[in-house]
Amino acid sequence: MARKIAILGGTGPEGLGLANRLARAGEHIVIGSREAPRAQQAAQQLRGRIGGAAQIDGADNAAAAAQCEIAVLTVPFSGQAALLKQLKNVWKPGTVVIDTTVPLAATVGGSPTRMIGVWQGSAAEAAAELLPAGVSVAAAFQNLGAELLAGDAAVECDVLVCSDDDKAKQVALELAAKIPGVRALNGGRLENARIVESMTIRYKVHSAGIRFTGLPAS
Amino acid sequence: MARKIAILGGTGPEGLGLANRLARAGEHIVIGSREAPRAQQAAQQLRGRIGGAAQIDGADNAAAAAQCEIAVLTVPFSGQAALLKQLKNVWKPGTVVIDTTVPLAATVGGSPTRMIGVWQGSAAEAAAELLPAGVSVAAAFQNLGAELLAGDAAVECDVLVCSDDDKAKQVALELAAKIPGVRALNGGRLENARIVESMTIRYKVHSAGIRFTGLPAS
Repeated sequence: MARKIAILGGTGPEGLGLANRLARAGEHIVIGSREAPRAQQAAQQLRGRIGGAAQIDGADNAAAAAQCEIAVLTVPFSGQAALLKQLKNVWKPGTVVIDTTVPLAATVGGSPTRMIGVWQGSAAEAAAELLPAGVSVAAAFQNLGAELLAGDAAVECDVLVCSDDDKAKQVALELAAKIPGVRALNGGRLENARIVESMTIRYKVHSAGIRFTGLPAS
Repeated sequence: MARKIAILGGTGPEGLGLANRLARAGEHIVIGSREAPRAQQAAQQLRGRIGGAAQIDGADNAAAAAQCEIAVLTVPFSGQAALLKQLKNVWKPGTVVIDTTVPLAATVGGSPTRMIGVWQGSAAEAAAELLPAGVSVAAAFQNLGAELLAGDAAVECDVLVCSDDDKAKQVALELAAKIPGVRALNGGRLENARIVESMTIRYKVHSAGIRFTGLPAS
C-alpha cells in the first residue's frame, strides 16, 4: 500500500495549499481537522478542483495522524502544543512529522509582521519536544505562502529543510522538490529552524517567497 | 472626589488579590471584567470578605477604565493586546496604567514555568505600544503571586517598579508600599520589565516572592 501523508490542521489556507500541491504530485493525502466533517468537506472540494485521480481523504486530526507515515503540521502556533499533546499516543513508530509553523505574534493578538520568541528556540524545536521517541521531525515549508500554494503554477522559491534526523530530512527534501519551481535545500540541524522561521516573518508578503543566490549548482 | 483604581481582568486570581490588598489599604477599587455582572459579583463577594468600609465596585473593563485615574492590567498575556485595542479611545488623559503581565508560555499551550519572548521586549513594553499619548505606564507586581495577595498577612516581598514616566513610577511605588510587608523599589526604565518578568517565571512557586538583599537602607 502506498504511503499516505496527513496534513494536520489541513483546512486552513496553508494546509490546503500543501494538500493541493502534494496531491497534484501524486501523493495520497489525508486532510486532518478538529472535526472530521469539515476535513471531509475540504477533501471533497479539493478533489473536485484538482480532478482526475487525486487521492484526498478527510478525517479528524487523530485519525489522520494514526493512518499516515508522514504528517505535516499546519496549525497556528497557538494550537501546536495542544494538538501534539492530544496526538502523543496516536503516532505510528517511524512517522515523520514535518513542521511548517511560524510563531507569529498574531497568535497572541500582536502584529502579523512580528514573531514571538519560543522558549525552545523555534516552533519546530517546540514540536520536537512534544513528539514521542520513534517519531522524527523536520522543519520545512515556512516560507511558502498559502497564496503561492493554492494554484498549480511553478513557484519561484527555495525550501530550507532543517532536521537532526536523516530520514526526516530526506522525506521533507523529496516532498518539497515535488512542488514545481521549488528548490529544496538542506538547512542543517533542526535548531536552524529559528532562522528560517524568522526569515518568513521578515519577508512575508502576499505571494512572495525566498531564493538564495550564489549557491553552487547541485 | 477620591481617585479610583480599575483592576482590569480583575476577576482572575491575580486581579482579585490586588483588589483585595488595595481595598484593604483604603483605595476605591473598580473591578473590571469582560462582563459587568461577573465583575459586580466579584466586587460584592470581596466587599463581604473584607467588610467594614471597603469600597469595591464592578463594571465591564471599558466602563472601569473610563471612570478611573489608575488602571491595573491583570489579564493573561494572550488577552492583553485585544483588551488594550478595545480601550484605545476609552482612557482619560493622564491615566496611569500599571501592567502586571508575565508572558507565560502557557498562554500558547506551553509550560507554566517558561516564557514566550515578546517582540517589544516585555509584556509591559507591548502594553506601552498600545496606549495612546497622555496615558503613562509602569510595570509592577509581577512577582507577587495570587496566593500571597489573597489574604491580609504581611508578605515578604520586594516589588520592582519600572517606568519611563515619573508620575506613573511614583503612583506604582506608592500603591506597592501600601501592601503590608512589601518593599517598593525603583526598577529603572520600563525596558527593565524584561528582567522583572523573567525573574517571575524563573522563581515563581506558590506563595513565593522575591527579596533583594544587600541594598542600602532607604
